[in-house]
Amino acid sequence: MELRLSERMNYLKASEIRELLKLTEQPDIISFAGGLPAPELFPIEQLKLISHKVLDVEGKNALQYGPTEGYTPLRKIIAEQRMKAVGVNVSFENILITNGSQQGLDFIGRVFLDKDDVVICESPSYLGAINAFRAYMPKFVEIPMDDDGMIVEELEKAIEKYPNAKFIYTIPDFQNPTGKTLSYERRVKMLQLAEKYNIPIVEDNPYGELRFEGEHIPTIKSMDKNGLVIYLGTFSKTFCPGLRLGWICAEIEMLNKFIIVKQGADLQSSSISQREAAFFMTTYSLEEHIEKIKAIYRKRRDLMIEMIKSEFPEEVKYTYPHGGLFTWVSLREDIDTAELLKTALLEKVAFVPGGSFFPNGGHPNHFRLNFSNMTEEKIVEGMKRLGKVLKEVYR
Amino acid sequence: MELRLSERMNYLKASEIRELLKLTEQPDIISFAGGLPAPELFPIEQLKLISHKVLDVEGKNALQYGPTEGYTPLRKIIAEQRMKAVGVNVSFENILITNGSQQGLDFIGRVFLDKDDVVICESPSYLGAINAFRAYMPKFVEIPMDDDGMIVEELEKAIEKYPNAKFIYTIPDFQNPTGKTLSYERRVKMLQLAEKYNIPIVEDNPYGELRFEGEHIPTIKSMDKNGLVIYLGTFSKTFCPGLRLGWICAEIEMLNKFIIVKQGADLQSSSISQREAAFFMTTYSLEEHIEKIKAIYRKRRDLMIEMIKSEFPEEVKYTYPHGGLFTWVSLREDIDTAELLKTALLEKVAFVPGGSFFPNGGHPNHFRLNFSNMTEEKIVEGMKRLGKVLKEVYR
Repeated sequence: MELRLSERMNYLKASEIRELLKLTEQPDIISFAGGLPAPELFPIEQLKLISHKVLDVEGKNALQYGPTEGYTPLRKIIAEQRMKAVGVNVSFENILITNGSQQGLDFIGRVFLDKDDVVICESPSYLGAINAFRAYMPKFVEIPMDDDGMIVEELEKAIEKYPNAKFIYTIPDFQNPTGKTLSYERRVKMLQLAEKYNIPIVEDNPYGELRFEGEHIPTIKSMDKNGLVIYLGTFSKTFCPGLRLGWICAEIEMLNKFIIVKQGADLQSSSISQREAAFFMTTYSLEEHIEKIKAIYRKRRDLMIEMIKSEFPEEVKYTYPHGGLFTWVSLREDIDTAELLKTALLEKVAFVPGGSFFPNGGHPNHFRLNFSNMTEEKIVEGMKRLGKVLKEVYR
Repeated sequence: MELRLSERMNYLKASEIRELLKLTEQPDIISFAGGLPAPELFPIEQLKLISHKVLDVEGKNALQYGPTEGYTPLRKIIAEQRMKAVGVNVSFENILITNGSQQGLDFIGRVFLDKDDVVICESPSYLGAINAFRAYMPKFVEIPMDDDGMIVEELEKAIEKYPNAKFIYTIPDFQNPTGKTLSYERRVKMLQLAEKYNIPIVEDNPYGELRFEGEHIPTIKSMDKNGLVIYLGTFSKTFCPGLRLGWICAEIEMLNKFIIVKQGADLQSSSISQREAAFFMTTYSLEEHIEKIKAIYRKRRDLMIEMIKSEFPEEVKYTYPHGGLFTWVSLREDIDTAELLKTALLEKVAFVPGGSFFPNGGHPNHFRLNFSNMTEEKIVEGMKRLGKVLKEVYR
């Protein structure tokens, strides 16, 4: 049959890259492509006890429908533990549980965007956010970055040009894909601009608690006096992505809009997963767990940077992330990393070509490397393979 | 701050009814309002064993990111067990796992609807579907029903008037809210009309496997030769809603659209819940579990109908559902059941006023009663209370 679909489906195409990346699931490929946590760190034994306890203590509720807002004890833990950890004082009433922060991104699009509305974001920005927003057919205005993140002078120019922009989307800490961190001064300035022009900031912070070194920089939400910042959090990087649990933290009037949207989108997040997370966090210390993750990821980051230095051609540029999961590699401008991936796959190593992180296209000469998911042994071997591929191109 | 939101937010309002229904969560209220399964039937002990086994056998994968399409063994079980049970022969490649069928409804809206597009539905129709579609700002064309479900002659007139309608939304078995079932002849005719006018049918079938008596009527999907039927299934009524697991079954070209949408909406459904469901269904028999549910619900349906006969004023009309979770009560045309709910709450009993099930408004004189969630003792007591309220109005 001929499909008569909505206009938005013209903007949502199956990605060629995604098809290529499916190849990375083959066991003999060393993949630096995904944004996956290290599975060997998942607290499986503790969760066995916890899942039993949840069904013992709250079985009927854990398997029944629950409130759209989320399981109240989990909302309280998020307010009292995770939001406090990033300097934000809120109550559980400011928290809506979502299916990972990806669902938060979709809801942001749904609440704010009509066709051709302007979204301001970093250049490059998180691929998943771009895709989520794209379903609402906005225009993307990309703001260039340097080592201190989004260049706020450029942001101001963009806002002057597009004063009706619907929101500023930023990942201030260890940004995906670049690994860069927005400086304190720029956070202050960004918030001032948001207030001056009454444009909300969407602060997406999946990696903020994974800092390996240097001083913690306050979240933008922690400086927000006027309820202009909508904060997205997730347990996918600090706990387990398989549970699909994230949250939106916002002022109550704003949060109510998201609750209405959640009701229509899927009623609620899993009653049982929410309880498993909550019981875990009252029984064990997520802080201790995060310390373990950081220690391992730091080692892997160090090793990956070392391997870049020893194996990649000297001309290749890369970022040095102080936390998170990614480094960003920039090649000579005439090199197309989407093509390069095909060669890399022949050598059984994978990365994500950078082009998809630029919503308006262009910039084919970068790629993203993940250092959290592969063991040290595989990082060494994979980076050697990738070095070989790059040396071939730079010959 | 002044919120500058998307146009669709004007259509998505917090419902007054929803606020009233929050009161029904008080423990002293006997609520026939929700569409909740009986919690005492949840297989808690089996799930304790299963959740342990999932973490033992597949812990790392159960807590990690997984494919957007869903966990392949669960997709296979759905194709081979649940779709077969409703007479449909498909492969796992026709199945996308969603967060309950509510997410399927949202995706239907997203894939098909632009503003002012026409959705054809039963009058009344499922409140959650209306809300899900409303986010995409369609026009609703309501088709009247009689005891055999949607009147297909009226459907044909509507299609002739709106030949560009995007889809026909129907709940053929034990419809929510009316409990009515679409006759075989009408299913055949509906599919013929869909084919003639190239309009997809969305067949939402959460209750089809909960038939208490009479002969099974083939699903529309089972008669679909041209891939025009998009089928929504769920484990929420036959297993546990707290896991948030449903599915879309469609032809592959169509399903691919939903997969792209799922990717942007929340990446994937819970890795662990999907495995829990799959392990349960390979270890135990869901069929046996469904038989238990049916036996209990049938008793409760019988009891509720008996109580209607003995406690409600004679003039009150009601439907006699052959399965599912609901009966639909119709009062004198001048009675507003939203007002009546306030009186009922004073008597500590609750229902859902019928108005919200009509997308274009009107029809305030009906309400929906659920018989699956309350014990027999509570059905007796609650129906007495409700009878008292009604007798007062009819005095």
